[in-house]
Amino acid sequence: MSAPRYVSVIGAGSATPELAAKAEELGELLADRGCIVVCGGGTGVMEAVARGVKRRGGVSIGILPEADRRRAAPDLTYTVCSAMGHARNLSVVASGDVVIAVGGAWGTLSEIGLARSVGRPVILLDTWEVTPPEGGELDGVRRASTPAEAVELALAPPS
Amino acid sequence: MSAPRYVSVIGAGSATPELAAKAEELGELLADRGCIVVCGGGTGVMEAVARGVKRRGGVSIGILPEADRRRAAPDLTYTVCSAMGHARNLSVVASGDVVIAVGGAWGTLSEIGLARSVGRPVILLDTWEVTPPEGGELDGVRRASTPAEAVELALAPPS
Amino acid sequence: MSAPRYVSVIGAGSATPELAAKAEELGELLADRGCIVVCGGGTGVMEAVARGVKRRGGVSIGILPEADRRRAAPDLTYTVCSAMGHARNLSVVASGDVVIAVGGAWGTLSEIGLARSVGRPVILLDTWEVTPPEGGELDGVRRASTPAEAVELALAPPS
Amino acid sequence: MSAPRYVSVIGAGSATPELAAKAEELGELLADRGCIVVCGGGTGVMEAVARGVKRRGGVSIGILPEADRRRAAPDLTYTVCSAMGHARNLSVVASGDVVIAVGGAWGTLSEIGLARSVGRPVILLDTWEVTPPEGGELDGVRRASTPAEAVELALAPPS
Repeated sequence: MSAPRYVSVIGAGSATPELAAKAEELGELLADRGCIVVCGGGTGVMEAVARGVKRRGGVSIGILPEADRRRAAPDLTYTVCSAMGHARNLSVVASGDVVIAVGGAWGTLSEIGLARSVGRPVILLDTWEVTPPEGGELDGVRRASTPAEAVELALAPPS
Repeated sequence: MSAPRYVSVIGAGSATPELAAKAEELGELLADRGCIVVCGGGTGVMEAVARGVKRRGGVSIGILPEADRRRAAPDLTYTVCSAMGHARNLSVVASGDVVIAVGGAWGTLSEIGLARSVGRPVILLDTWEVTPPEGGELDGVRRASTPAEAVELALAPPS
Repeated sequence: MSAPRYVSVIGAGSATPELAAKAEELGELLADRGCIVVCGGGTGVMEAVARGVKRRGGVSIGILPEADRRRAAPDLTYTVCSAMGHARNLSVVASGDVVIAVGGAWGTLSEIGLARSVGRPVILLDTWEVTPPEGGELDGVRRASTPAEAVELALAPPS
Repeated sequence: MSAPRYVSVIGAGSATPELAAKAEELGELLADRGCIVVCGGGTGVMEAVARGVKRRGGVSIGILPEADRRRAAPDLTYTVCSAMGHARNLSVVASGDVVIAVGGAWGTLSEIGLARSVGRPVILLDTWEVTPPEGGELDGVRRASTPAEAVELALAPPS
């Protein structure tokens, strides 16, 4: 039996109903595939993905910025209290073997950058468009247009 | 149903067979009580407590200093990659509702201090003796002489 | 006498001669204006900005990812060893009252996101183009086309 | 000319007048010796040591837990905003070539442990007594009974 695959799902603390639905679907699909889902443990996209994972009986781990576990999204399976604010963004992305960004605010942008800084592949779904400065390369990043496609890209063997 | 209790077990990356046996017993007892056990995810005490938890079918979460999951102790149920070196000590202790220190080197001492800094009760078992400077108080710390006593103290209702 | 203004300059650890020249000019101009310049303390843009600051007799502070001060850029006035890897990106941007991004790789992108997460205004100079997802706002970010313009925008009274 | 020596002074956010006087004297003596003094940037011991440094025209750097520079002790020469709470304790000690602990609460205890974890020698002055568990060694730590002795021990060539 191979080791389970960890997938970090990143996104903003607030989400439109449409975006929350996509995050929830992501959670469902990842749980169906046996992945362990890591997120930032808060509201919005984080809460929605945890809800999707729970519905399908999967496992999610939320890494909170606070020291107080009671701030965690209700449907998370497990919570980690980083107690170091936004610095926890690094732990969220490093804890995934691959990272899916869905929607997003500034924290999500920082997580895309941190994910690549520690070598994690990133799948972008309805999130930031980022264009490197002249001469730079957008390596390690792929775009998806649906949750299903994001999951396929995330779990595809590296090419 | 009440929320599960998280217990962080801290200790050094190397352990004598005697100390490892105590850590393993701690893991077993905490798993038997339905606790989720958090540790630093490495060798020595961390590896031993994860082994004890696994033997009893419990759940352990290791929070690694590295970005590389393959450095994790083999018997951990789940791993988080903090990617921030010794700064992860804060996340290890903040993630426990209560902290048990068993044996220990300098990192363990730092974790005792960090645990109290974020208000976590600490149970000491064959670990550092710490005496505050004149006029200081050793609040929030209790001593145990066996793993069983440590678990009782950790899970006792706050007095 | 008013408090000195802290300006964080962020950018990649490697830089073309052209980009390094811009970073150096930024350092000179900020030193001339009496600013304290904060950077990540490494090579590339960080080294170049420290060189510019030193040439004009200003003060720069480099916040290193490592615990080893000897890894610091040679022209820094002072160094801080964060000892927490990429998590130090947060300290680099939070230590500036305003942040200037020049050129940049993934770490720079993370710093733009972290800077905005802690409410710092960001000036972009030959760096990432970032476009928020639909409905999102690019608040708190302005573009400059020269080092001089970046400094003017950074030091202008908030509108 | 040799590189300046960085000395981190750690201690609690509250201090008796007697302890504050010792911290202030430490600051004065370290400034007289040309050291750059690093501290946690807050009240109590941190504020006192910065005051001593300033009186003698030296340089101090405070590394704050917050993102808000206005929380800094008034007499610091420079401030760094870590924005990561107690995790900044690691940066405070790693930024000193040597660490002096004076007085202290739980945060100070954590800093003694973190300092040794990154290999920094520690001088203890009216602070925690720490005794390692059986078989452990108290390496890298020396005790002083006055600020002058602490400074001598801190600046003595390594034996």
